[in-house]
Amino acid sequence: MSNGLLKGKKGIIFGALNNQSIAWKVAERAHEEGAQLVLTNAPIAMRMGEINALGEKTGAPIIPADATNVDELNNLIQKSMEHFGGKIDFILHSIGMSMNVRKGKHYTDQNYDFTMKGLDVSALSFHKVLQSAMKADAMNDWGSILALSYIAAQRVFPDYNDMADNKSYLESIARSFGYHYGVAKKVRVNTISQSPTMTTAGSGVKGFNEFINFSEKMSPLGNASALDCANYCIVMFSDLTKYVTMQNLFHDGGFSNTGVTQEVIEKFGQ
Amino acid sequence: MSNGLLKGKKGIIFGALNNQSIAWKVAERAHEEGAQLVLTNAPIAMRMGEINALGEKTGAPIIPADATNVDELNNLIQKSMEHFGGKIDFILHSIGMSMNVRKGKHYTDQNYDFTMKGLDVSALSFHKVLQSAMKADAMNDWGSILALSYIAAQRVFPDYNDMADNKSYLESIARSFGYHYGVAKKVRVNTISQSPTMTTAGSGVKGFNEFINFSEKMSPLGNASALDCANYCIVMFSDLTKYVTMQNLFHDGGFSNTGVTQEVIEKFGQ
Amino acid sequence: MSNGLLKGKKGIIFGALNNQSIAWKVAERAHEEGAQLVLTNAPIAMRMGEINALGEKTGAPIIPADATNVDELNNLIQKSMEHFGGKIDFILHSIGMSMNVRKGKHYTDQNYDFTMKGLDVSALSFHKVLQSAMKADAMNDWGSILALSYIAAQRVFPDYNDMADNKSYLESIARSFGYHYGVAKKVRVNTISQSPTMTTAGSGVKGFNEFINFSEKMSPLGNASALDCANYCIVMFSDLTKYVTMQNLFHDGGFSNTGVTQEVIEKFGQ
Amino acid sequence: MSNGLLKGKKGIIFGALNNQSIAWKVAERAHEEGAQLVLTNAPIAMRMGEINALGEKTGAPIIPADATNVDELNNLIQKSMEHFGGKIDFILHSIGMSMNVRKGKHYTDQNYDFTMKGLDVSALSFHKVLQSAMKADAMNDWGSILALSYIAAQRVFPDYNDMADNKSYLESIARSFGYHYGVAKKVRVNTISQSPTMTTAGSGVKGFNEFINFSEKMSPLGNASALDCANYCIVMFSDLTKYVTMQNLFHDGGFSNTGVTQEVIEKFGQ
Repeated sequence: MSNGLLKGKKGIIFGALNNQSIAWKVAERAHEEGAQLVLTNAPIAMRMGEINALGEKTGAPIIPADATNVDELNNLIQKSMEHFGGKIDFILHSIGMSMNVRKGKHYTDQNYDFTMKGLDVSALSFHKVLQSAMKADAMNDWGSILALSYIAAQRVFPDYNDMADNKSYLESIARSFGYHYGVAKKVRVNTISQSPTMTTAGSGVKGFNEFINFSEKMSPLGNASALDCANYCIVMFSDLTKYVTMQNLFHDGGFSNTGVTQEVIEKFGQ
Repeated sequence: MSNGLLKGKKGIIFGALNNQSIAWKVAERAHEEGAQLVLTNAPIAMRMGEINALGEKTGAPIIPADATNVDELNNLIQKSMEHFGGKIDFILHSIGMSMNVRKGKHYTDQNYDFTMKGLDVSALSFHKVLQSAMKADAMNDWGSILALSYIAAQRVFPDYNDMADNKSYLESIARSFGYHYGVAKKVRVNTISQSPTMTTAGSGVKGFNEFINFSEKMSPLGNASALDCANYCIVMFSDLTKYVTMQNLFHDGGFSNTGVTQEVIEKFGQ
Repeated sequence: MSNGLLKGKKGIIFGALNNQSIAWKVAERAHEEGAQLVLTNAPIAMRMGEINALGEKTGAPIIPADATNVDELNNLIQKSMEHFGGKIDFILHSIGMSMNVRKGKHYTDQNYDFTMKGLDVSALSFHKVLQSAMKADAMNDWGSILALSYIAAQRVFPDYNDMADNKSYLESIARSFGYHYGVAKKVRVNTISQSPTMTTAGSGVKGFNEFINFSEKMSPLGNASALDCANYCIVMFSDLTKYVTMQNLFHDGGFSNTGVTQEVIEKFGQ
Repeated sequence: MSNGLLKGKKGIIFGALNNQSIAWKVAERAHEEGAQLVLTNAPIAMRMGEINALGEKTGAPIIPADATNVDELNNLIQKSMEHFGGKIDFILHSIGMSMNVRKGKHYTDQNYDFTMKGLDVSALSFHKVLQSAMKADAMNDWGSILALSYIAAQRVFPDYNDMADNKSYLESIARSFGYHYGVAKKVRVNTISQSPTMTTAGSGVKGFNEFINFSEKMSPLGNASALDCANYCIVMFSDLTKYVTMQNLFHDGGFSNTGVTQEVIEKFGQ
């Protein structure tokens, strides 16, 4: 399927680890829709992943960059513009990690070095990407930059731990930077708040199966898949959504505005 | 318990049907806190209720008024000011009824005459109360007017039916009229979004027991009681909250910002 | 410009009055993207408008229907399915009118017959369209239904009068019906909250020029045009946004999440 | 004025610098309402401030603590319980500082060490306070913990810089920790989103006069004063608001739900 929605556009995709990753699907779909791509990931993530296969499939060079490292980001932006022979139209930030979760620290028993590390990787990295792009004047006018978020930024899901606070910070960056980038260059910045998705990252979280199941039953359309999320990213990168900016966009089968479903309430009878 | 928070204040309470009603508790508590009251209800509701007992307990006259009838509201406002010998400091609107719910009409099979009737009783009546009060210049500066709402105004609870849309309209009135009444007379207008409460009104709704149970388990502090809601109304009527206006205030034990609790998620294991 | 995003899809467009109307632009763009259309409007609006020209341009029959009249809506749905030789994929509801505004009644001095009439036209009509479609089983699975809204549903703009409350009710219908239609048929229902737009409807509102100007200066990207709004409707009708439902989507150049802009704050110096 | 609302309650107040501080007013009002207090501030802030005078006035010991330092917080909690001879009923967190703002770094040109430092002081410190209190089992059941926030957490005010992102993180902590503290001990955690207030902290921000002026004109009741904010804190510490938790409460004269006022729109005519 292709509608040529991104024909002639150039974009950078962060965070494609393997073919379960949302970023992977976005890269595949963006390629189908006519975009030229650069793929990137942290060196450590690249060793675990299969990003080379994706690079071949989409004709995209892979330029490693630790998204918490400003120098590496500056290099990525520079090299990408050289590769494209021009400016960039879209960027996807799909990066997140909580050290407290990984190390089994409860939300009320955080190790604050872990907290800061997780914030840097999951949220501040988005600011660093935006700032690097802006300083290099790397984006075309009306370019579109997305990060992936989750509704834990608004409501508590206990096992989501400090990632909730990171996602709140991330969404705030989208608003704050979206204002400045919009005024300066008409570049729009948004987050997509996606259904829980069974990726390699997600599957490591305690109780994730129960959680996916709950979310499925609390969503009138069911959970959105990684491919559907990729389709939504495509339209947000396209010229058909030029006046959407500084928003957090729920892509979740209706979960966010559902208080309860019939199927769930039935579990609460006597 | 009394802190004299409403000493010298005068208020009108709509909707005290019996001692399970939130409005009943508000009247009792307002009286304890030193307020003078007028009680009112629709003539039909008064026949079913025990409002005379409340009137005696709180030393309050009872002035019937159908809250959808502007003439009766004008009379109520006029008579209340005569009784108080002056202007009014606070009003509680605790009125709601869906004909579609009563008659067993599904949300997708509404009788639109029922819909309009329910909207008039549940939401437009709030505008009528406000407009009557404003036209009569009946409120003291910095007066406080409250209506009771429910989170169905923001998220779907299937059995709540068209009351959800009514509550959205009600909350919008609080904002819209709150603006004008604030600018004109410093009067503040808010809604309190209360936990589901086992009142006579609530207990008639299909599946209400399951629903109360679900809500209890989804609220970190549990459901808020009618008495606790009354306490919250007292502070919103007091001079300690003078700059809170045009807000919808969640009084729900944390339900509104809880995505899921541990206790609920455990029902979704294999 | 066309990407064939609506190839093979069939839709009904309410509310195209003349070539300034958003609905007019949506019809043009949907036609370009490959959709088959039926156009409709209230008989009275059709006399004022130039909808025949649009019908010719887009090859669409025009079937009059007063959107507050269930019989006329049932007829419209029936005739549309006959014309298409099958079910419907998308519907646009772009209808709004406040009698209080037209007759110069202030928000705090409403004529409640006017209020009810405006609510019926501007909001309840959306429920009637949805209910008629559902009863006739007229929508294909994963169909998409949109109504146009405005941020006055969330925040007060004094001259917007009771249209604010109507829009709150409209957005609530999108959530409530979106739940039921999603569960039953995977049909999604959303509202788009558009920048103020200089249409025939808008230009009648007192102080609209000042208001457009304020909104332009408070939006990092400026106000979104009718054509841009039409583009956003196209993507919301397409298969690329299948898991977005029950949402109110801001299409406003960032206005909704901007507290103040540099350009506006400068007017508040000494 | 006193209603004895906090009679018998014990609380810790962070952030009283001088008599313009909101925290200063809260301490005075809490004392009037019958509470016993401990005052605290960072050693560096204490040298600049006049906190000793407040300690004398309110009969409160002053225990210095850098709120980013877990050991100092643990000491503060321990010493406070010793002083009170028991557990704590309420805590106010009124702390905020952006190094980027202080050093004149634009939001799009951040020094990330400054960013991290500001986040630690302004937001993560709140988590540290909560975690220290919880680990020491220092709070009485139904205790109440507040932090002060600002609407920049939801909408962009360009000069507010990275404090916006810090406030988003702060409000997320209130939700996340409020869940866990609520489930475990019925302790409630909220933020109050206050009008801009002319304190020593505020007055250092570029363009703050224009900003206060804009906010005043965009608020139907005008900006809320520090004293009014203190009154609101008192009710949130009292037993009359026991079921309010995990909320961000706007105390802003209606600013948050006002799209525009008549007074502001008039500046946008020709």
